[in-house]
Amino acid sequence: MSHITLHEGAPGIVGPMIAYPETEKHLNGLAEALLRAPSSLTPAEREIIATYVSSENDCYFCMNTHAAAARHLLGTEKEVVDEVIVGYRNATISPKLKALLTIAGKVQKGGRRVTEEDVARARAEGADDRAIHDTVLIAAAFCMFNRYVDGLATWAPDDPALYAQAGAKLGREGYLHSIR
Amino acid sequence: MSHITLHEGAPGIVGPMIAYPETEKHLNGLAEALLRAPSSLTPAEREIIATYVSSENDCYFCMNTHAAAARHLLGTEKEVVDEVIVGYRNATISPKLKALLTIAGKVQKGGRRVTEEDVARARAEGADDRAIHDTVLIAAAFCMFNRYVDGLATWAPDDPALYAQAGAKLGREGYLHSIR
Repeated sequence: MSHITLHEGAPGIVGPMIAYPETEKHLNGLAEALLRAPSSLTPAEREIIATYVSSENDCYFCMNTHAAAARHLLGTEKEVVDEVIVGYRNATISPKLKALLTIAGKVQKGGRRVTEEDVARARAEGADDRAIHDTVLIAAAFCMFNRYVDGLATWAPDDPALYAQAGAKLGREGYLHSIR
Repeated sequence: MSHITLHEGAPGIVGPMIAYPETEKHLNGLAEALLRAPSSLTPAEREIIATYVSSENDCYFCMNTHAAAARHLLGTEKEVVDEVIVGYRNATISPKLKALLTIAGKVQKGGRRVTEEDVARARAEGADDRAIHDTVLIAAAFCMFNRYVDGLATWAPDDPALYAQAGAKLGREGYLHSIR
């Protein structure tokens, strides 16, 4: 049972977003800007970073939701999402995305852990300032979203079909209407 | 030196906020909604939670900035901010705020650590759903802000007078015009 009263049957972050709309609009605005707005990273790459950080934070709801969004965006290449969850170093993703996931993993543990060498390696693989900025802020933001979801003990459905449905909607429509 | 090119001399989060305005507006909108908008917690109580979480995350810039904002809001009672930084259990704050800082400290380490007993204790001391919600989301949000600031290796000034000045401005005006 969640730690505060939330709309019955609303999964994960949807419950507190419905109950607290003053913060919801900024949280979804941030998600849209970070994961969908123009960037040197594709929406699929950004959803993979979100999925990986949610996995490291052991947030079942967020990991499954963003994995489903990434799969929708990747289409026939969707199997790489599960490869990243199992271990990104052996996944069939670009060296650039691997270097950025290393940075994201450091941010997940604490911002000070990111080194100049981590950043230099990402740049050598083609990452620009925008990619490094977005990776750091996506990783940081999912440290927030994951804690919001689990710190309130929200309900996470088990049914994979529900995540696939939610992920397809997020893949198609983005975040601005995600709870409506 | 910061990991990406930022406006020279802009301290902490101000640098990336100036350089990336598409995310800045949502970050400052969230800070305003969380720390200043109507709540069952006072702005000073919410700045103390932000200060405590930033201290636990070892984020020098955020801890000093929000401590200064809390001191400005508290006026003659401002010494409690340093008491909280040294150890909130012995600070001259309400039992309700102590119980909420316990929840915030758990969220800082990971959302799943918050227990029903933690929440029941906060309720017994007078915390309502809104207070519990806001505590969890403030703690979660500062896990983001702190990682954004340190994950990009932004510049943190040493001079206490600069933090006092910034804190007074945030105390008076809030976050919507914080970088302008």
